[in-house]
Amino acid sequence: MNTLNDFSDKFHDACGLFGVYNHEDAAKLTYLGLFALQHRGQESAGISTSHKGELLFYKKNGLVTHIFIEEVLNTLPGNIAIGHTRYSTAGGSAFINAQPLVINYIRGKLAIAHNGHFINAKDLRNKLEQNGSIFQTISDSEVLLHLLACSKKENLINALLESLPLINGSYSLILMTPDKLIGIRDPFGFRPLSIGKLNNSYILASETCALNLVEAEHLRDVEPSEIVVIDKNGLNSLKFSTPKKHAQCIFEYIYFSRPDSNLFGQNVHNIRKKIGQQLALEHPADADVVISVPDSGISASLGFSEESGIPYDIGLMRNHYIGRTFISPLQIFRDFGVKIKLNPILNVLKGKRIVLVDDSIVRGTTSKKILSLLRNSGVASIHFRVSSPPIKYSCIYGIDTPERDKLLAAHRSMKEIKNYLNVDSLGYLSISGLLKSVGDDGNKFCTACFDGNYPTET
Amino acid sequence: MNTLNDFSDKFHDACGLFGVYNHEDAAKLTYLGLFALQHRGQESAGISTSHKGELLFYKKNGLVTHIFIEEVLNTLPGNIAIGHTRYSTAGGSAFINAQPLVINYIRGKLAIAHNGHFINAKDLRNKLEQNGSIFQTISDSEVLLHLLACSKKENLINALLESLPLINGSYSLILMTPDKLIGIRDPFGFRPLSIGKLNNSYILASETCALNLVEAEHLRDVEPSEIVVIDKNGLNSLKFSTPKKHAQCIFEYIYFSRPDSNLFGQNVHNIRKKIGQQLALEHPADADVVISVPDSGISASLGFSEESGIPYDIGLMRNHYIGRTFISPLQIFRDFGVKIKLNPILNVLKGKRIVLVDDSIVRGTTSKKILSLLRNSGVASIHFRVSSPPIKYSCIYGIDTPERDKLLAAHRSMKEIKNYLNVDSLGYLSISGLLKSVGDDGNKFCTACFDGNYPTET
Amino acid sequence: MNTLNDFSDKFHDACGLFGVYNHEDAAKLTYLGLFALQHRGQESAGISTSHKGELLFYKKNGLVTHIFIEEVLNTLPGNIAIGHTRYSTAGGSAFINAQPLVINYIRGKLAIAHNGHFINAKDLRNKLEQNGSIFQTISDSEVLLHLLACSKKENLINALLESLPLINGSYSLILMTPDKLIGIRDPFGFRPLSIGKLNNSYILASETCALNLVEAEHLRDVEPSEIVVIDKNGLNSLKFSTPKKHAQCIFEYIYFSRPDSNLFGQNVHNIRKKIGQQLALEHPADADVVISVPDSGISASLGFSEESGIPYDIGLMRNHYIGRTFISPLQIFRDFGVKIKLNPILNVLKGKRIVLVDDSIVRGTTSKKILSLLRNSGVASIHFRVSSPPIKYSCIYGIDTPERDKLLAAHRSMKEIKNYLNVDSLGYLSISGLLKSVGDDGNKFCTACFDGNYPTET
Amino acid sequence: MNTLNDFSDKFHDACGLFGVYNHEDAAKLTYLGLFALQHRGQESAGISTSHKGELLFYKKNGLVTHIFIEEVLNTLPGNIAIGHTRYSTAGGSAFINAQPLVINYIRGKLAIAHNGHFINAKDLRNKLEQNGSIFQTISDSEVLLHLLACSKKENLINALLESLPLINGSYSLILMTPDKLIGIRDPFGFRPLSIGKLNNSYILASETCALNLVEAEHLRDVEPSEIVVIDKNGLNSLKFSTPKKHAQCIFEYIYFSRPDSNLFGQNVHNIRKKIGQQLALEHPADADVVISVPDSGISASLGFSEESGIPYDIGLMRNHYIGRTFISPLQIFRDFGVKIKLNPILNVLKGKRIVLVDDSIVRGTTSKKILSLLRNSGVASIHFRVSSPPIKYSCIYGIDTPERDKLLAAHRSMKEIKNYLNVDSLGYLSISGLLKSVGDDGNKFCTACFDGNYPTET
Repeated sequence: MNTLNDFSDKFHDACGLFGVYNHEDAAKLTYLGLFALQHRGQESAGISTSHKGELLFYKKNGLVTHIFIEEVLNTLPGNIAIGHTRYSTAGGSAFINAQPLVINYIRGKLAIAHNGHFINAKDLRNKLEQNGSIFQTISDSEVLLHLLACSKKENLINALLESLPLINGSYSLILMTPDKLIGIRDPFGFRPLSIGKLNNSYILASETCALNLVEAEHLRDVEPSEIVVIDKNGLNSLKFSTPKKHAQCIFEYIYFSRPDSNLFGQNVHNIRKKIGQQLALEHPADADVVISVPDSGISASLGFSEESGIPYDIGLMRNHYIGRTFISPLQIFRDFGVKIKLNPILNVLKGKRIVLVDDSIVRGTTSKKILSLLRNSGVASIHFRVSSPPIKYSCIYGIDTPERDKLLAAHRSMKEIKNYLNVDSLGYLSISGLLKSVGDDGNKFCTACFDGNYPTET
Repeated sequence: MNTLNDFSDKFHDACGLFGVYNHEDAAKLTYLGLFALQHRGQESAGISTSHKGELLFYKKNGLVTHIFIEEVLNTLPGNIAIGHTRYSTAGGSAFINAQPLVINYIRGKLAIAHNGHFINAKDLRNKLEQNGSIFQTISDSEVLLHLLACSKKENLINALLESLPLINGSYSLILMTPDKLIGIRDPFGFRPLSIGKLNNSYILASETCALNLVEAEHLRDVEPSEIVVIDKNGLNSLKFSTPKKHAQCIFEYIYFSRPDSNLFGQNVHNIRKKIGQQLALEHPADADVVISVPDSGISASLGFSEESGIPYDIGLMRNHYIGRTFISPLQIFRDFGVKIKLNPILNVLKGKRIVLVDDSIVRGTTSKKILSLLRNSGVASIHFRVSSPPIKYSCIYGIDTPERDKLLAAHRSMKEIKNYLNVDSLGYLSISGLLKSVGDDGNKFCTACFDGNYPTET
Repeated sequence: MNTLNDFSDKFHDACGLFGVYNHEDAAKLTYLGLFALQHRGQESAGISTSHKGELLFYKKNGLVTHIFIEEVLNTLPGNIAIGHTRYSTAGGSAFINAQPLVINYIRGKLAIAHNGHFINAKDLRNKLEQNGSIFQTISDSEVLLHLLACSKKENLINALLESLPLINGSYSLILMTPDKLIGIRDPFGFRPLSIGKLNNSYILASETCALNLVEAEHLRDVEPSEIVVIDKNGLNSLKFSTPKKHAQCIFEYIYFSRPDSNLFGQNVHNIRKKIGQQLALEHPADADVVISVPDSGISASLGFSEESGIPYDIGLMRNHYIGRTFISPLQIFRDFGVKIKLNPILNVLKGKRIVLVDDSIVRGTTSKKILSLLRNSGVASIHFRVSSPPIKYSCIYGIDTPERDKLLAAHRSMKEIKNYLNVDSLGYLSISGLLKSVGDDGNKFCTACFDGNYPTET
Repeated sequence: MNTLNDFSDKFHDACGLFGVYNHEDAAKLTYLGLFALQHRGQESAGISTSHKGELLFYKKNGLVTHIFIEEVLNTLPGNIAIGHTRYSTAGGSAFINAQPLVINYIRGKLAIAHNGHFINAKDLRNKLEQNGSIFQTISDSEVLLHLLACSKKENLINALLESLPLINGSYSLILMTPDKLIGIRDPFGFRPLSIGKLNNSYILASETCALNLVEAEHLRDVEPSEIVVIDKNGLNSLKFSTPKKHAQCIFEYIYFSRPDSNLFGQNVHNIRKKIGQQLALEHPADADVVISVPDSGISASLGFSEESGIPYDIGLMRNHYIGRTFISPLQIFRDFGVKIKLNPILNVLKGKRIVLVDDSIVRGTTSKKILSLLRNSGVASIHFRVSSPPIKYSCIYGIDTPERDKLLAAHRSMKEIKNYLNVDSLGYLSISGLLKSVGDDGNKFCTACFDGNYPTET
């Protein structure tokens, strides 16, 4: 839920998807859904609607509430809609990659919104270009659109059944034709996608917090390998692949998703609290107070406090008014980047032995700044607790991790990391502790960023 | 720290002030200071600087980070600066009331930024108009400027000594001339104003969180009845009134100020925790979990939890992406206003006996919506605890409370309020408990909104 | 009618005024009137309306059609309105000088829009400041407002009768109270102001082209020294000064006004044609074609052509798409400034002996660039004819002329100017020829910029 | 050169193309070129540059000077560039059709800008979709890109030689690869495209006025059926089709192009003057004055005046401040649409027998409003002269004419048109007179809109 990225060493690129079938205010409902999913991407947003056989759309760089003012929503009539929020790389031409993508092809009109990453995208693009395809974006979705366009199958569903198995990687997808809404999850189930019902309307959403906002009932999740087709015949389900070992992204629990969402069958906040409890069991600390790096570390902090009996308090105050236009800080300030977002409450910190809980460490540079800020606030000692295992490998499934050598834990021992961060003690959650916390009954999650076991063939 | 006001029943209009003397990046420092004070007013912001004998300025409707982009800040050279953030009434002409006000008058150039309200402003305006003054804004500051302009005293300080006693009401003020920075607090000390030092620069700020951000040391507060004059002779102090009984706004502790600020000598977060503890002593509850209305109720919730032993948890998730452009919600949703800002975490609430801690109740309409949201989330029972006494009287010192008859507690018994809100139990903090929590050794605070004892002659 | 000022050596600052009494769409009518007067000022525009005893207003930097979008006009109900378009100096604080100015003072609410310049403004400001007035703008209008506020007269009209004689300088004014519309011209009649009637509504406008657009009938002009009061008693007239020798700005004919306006009793285009004819009589040329510097020189060119028998043709094509955002031209181009606005039609120019007619020469730098552009287009010879006399003195009545030493003709002989401009022959219109062309029956016009005879006491 | 389209019955959609090879400021030069071509399309504009093997681009709705502010141009380094200005249909999704289109395909990266219309686009799209192509825009250019992508030829040039003959219709094209700039005109030569040279740089531009602005020398035009390839080997030419009868759009002379451009070998202004002379020969009038509908009718008016001996004068004044945001005019005004753009100069018109020259009549609605405006200005009689033949057929080559039945002259006799327009006499130029004026030595021009002889197989 970052809005400022300049000094962040957190992951990004967990896009948000939303779709509505059979609602007279489909675009407005999608607007609300995207608003609830804003934390999954603040770079651009788009909505497409089906209206009288046409697929209308509007997409732009910026936040959902800035883009979709009333007069824009009024240009999007129709009772089927899909929407997308996106985080991604910058650059003058970046807009062209905003989603949904809307095309004309042999079977008519089609819109698509995608969360994930095709690891064989480059190969597929090369093959498609050999056969005459042209690419106007760098979006993986365009690859799937070309596969569908090149398929000789008579209808879209059969083309999907033929095309999806060619893709290696992570994808939750929402597609729209003039009369259908389609939801898809890859066979590993990397990214979430939930199904909701609101009176006679069906909803698809990346997280259940979006269903809550529009007061839809959470029916169930789209299953890995499942295509859910919603049209005048109601909701029908197909499988496009034989069952595989699931590999749901465990970082959705640790960082990406909103605490109020239910994900992969469990509540995110609850999982984070369990993770915090487990962390306290694995790495107890002799301390006066537990504080968190807000907002992502708060739930785990509460769990740590509960298990350890050390009281939780607010030691760092977050300023939420940071927007895209914050100007470059003055050179005269040390550690300035972190200070515009976080301010220490000295009264809570001074002279105290603190446990600081953060959700993860990627490069380590922001952690170092936060720790320095706390040091300068007069804490007696810092016991740094991280509610995830050391990140040692880059993600290849759509999360924008830096290359492996830039990951703090890639090649360093615990002692080296402790020295680098200059803390009195350091404790990362263990992989087994994490899996226990999320209640894994055996291998339902992808933990590649911790252990390098990439579930797909690479 | 509200960013959306459409459905809020909270107070507003606690403007933010910031001033810098003797810093080569005075405007940039002021930008940072205003950014830290953004929670005190999101309607407009302005900065004025002293440069080569001229007072430059720029002010506009909007958030600080949106207004003061780099190219704007670059048009504001100079090593003295003052800034203002403002919350106020809407309307096409509202901009003209943005501050600082910058004028030419008999003694040269003068800029002013004001937090508070003159209760005899209308009388003063009438008298001044009789003598030929014209008013271009509805700002109280303009009244003071006219008093200063009409004073026959030879210099600004003497004119202030003559004019300030004519004003009845609340005011913290920062003034700037081409070579001076001046800070003033009214004799009652209603609104805060702190003095900081950063190397060879002096800083004035409404709250210490702004001093922290620019890494200034907090020297002391401007005292009630004090004029602090900062110029090439350093910082000098004058009193313009004999001591009065202080009447610091106790709502600064309850709601307006940032938890990380130190105010009237104490840390806000700490005071709020004590308030929560006192609330738990006065109104214990048989419950499973303490939850708060974020963000303003969190500190008191922690205090309540600590004192009561009932665990604190996050039951309502706040969406911080709400901006000025959020479009009108769909009519199909009940209680929608509150839902775009707060989403319940069902898992925490379902079947639980909850203590809900909020900082205050004004009209009661938002509270009712939040309580309804919680009821619909399946809580077993709600024990509503309010970390301030019942608000029974309108504020006349600059806080935008509704007229008395619209205050929920103005004419209702506790039982009527409990029934209206439909809660299982209701507990407001007592006035004595509040005063005890803030460590009042006797009558340092204004509690007029609770007891009707307005400290000024009215 | 310039929209780009970077390379212009033309005059500026001929503001546009418009007012409406008794029309249900007063603001929209004013919008149209200001649109027609846009050529008189492109820096900012504002409209104020009288609605239920209040004076509403909206003003902003920019063009009329950019500022007054529908949703803004909808915030300006009321059946009396005044509006202003303004050209003036730049700077971050410049907005504060946008008009109309709207104030509260002893007699209630008052709005004012001004075209002109008070030459004793500084003295008046000093005196007013001595008496306690404060100034929030650098606008001359504010001086008059203070005079009115300080007047002890019982009503506005009497206060005007007392105050206006104190002012030395040029002013056409429109004032509005909640129930009156007032038009005023100074005793010399420097700037124009016309009265129109549209059914039951009265209109005031700087030029008749604005009356035409709203289909109002041109009744007559406000006379020098006249106050026209329009209210429920209809239109009433007062004189505030004994008759003086009129001194209408002759440059309104030469450059400022639109050709389709009738000004000081005559049509501007027609006057310009007569000027061109006179110029041809005074400075005949042996040439193949008459071309003009568009758009201001066209009318005079037609007159020159008619009188001389030399055919008129289009030799310079003007690009009207230049807006405020045109980026700085590349350094690689010579004479670039003029080229983005004017492109030669080679076919018309090549090998021809041309007469080039321009309306005036101020600094001479733009003329030199245009002449160089024509030389490079292969003309055989250039006979430069200027449809005004040499400008030798700065204007002190509101026209933004440079200081005298920067005027090309201030201290140079005709021969020096001809050499500087590098033309084959040079002819300026004589002062007597100009006066003859405008039909002056003796001293109705100000010609101070040509002969230094300033009509006011200076 | 329209900027307001609400009440216009003129043609549109004559896009502007510009390209640069080998200039360090390629994007800035393209910006200037597009600025000069702004009259050919005000809907959107785009620039793409080749930089280090990548094709960067930026495109947006709006005017060139509004889109390409300095910070945007700075994101477009590179020494090859192409640009496009576009006029087209509105709608929320219209942006996606902005050009240049930039793609990746089998041969690498390619950018394209197009002026014209493929009349077999629908057939080609259907065939391409059958073969698996997807379409993201409604632009004809995308059809060509797919043809190129599907071609098995080893390089782009050979693919063009194979693909272009498949296209039936009008097209001037500029293509860019990372190392080449390519210009193409269709075999009929419908739309113009000129080649310029600026030191060591080559330029391509729709009209020579753009070459003039950047001070490039006009080398020659791209010929019909010619592919001009500009790369490190210099400029090389290929023909992709055997010679056909040329069919250059004669309306480029009548209306689209700027008077200062040289087109199809002749100066536009000069041609228009000849047209006006011919019109005077064919349809003399007994009148006092010749006036024109500005700006497009001015050149022909001068020709009419010269031939007839009737003096030319300015009877209609055009307001150039109309922008995209002009609000809907008040319902109370008759004929309002035309009035915001044109104001009569009564003095020139009153009691006069006038010849009104306009360039063409499409639907006739605007002409009728202008004529009514003139009638209300008190003219004695109107002799309407049209400097083109009656438009009886819709254009299928890229000009946005209405369907045939909406063309005033499609099914009406001269007498019916005269009655409809309510003029004293009416004269259209004859087709033979038009061809004579443009110096056609036999069939070099398309006159389909007049005679229905469409040069392509349809």
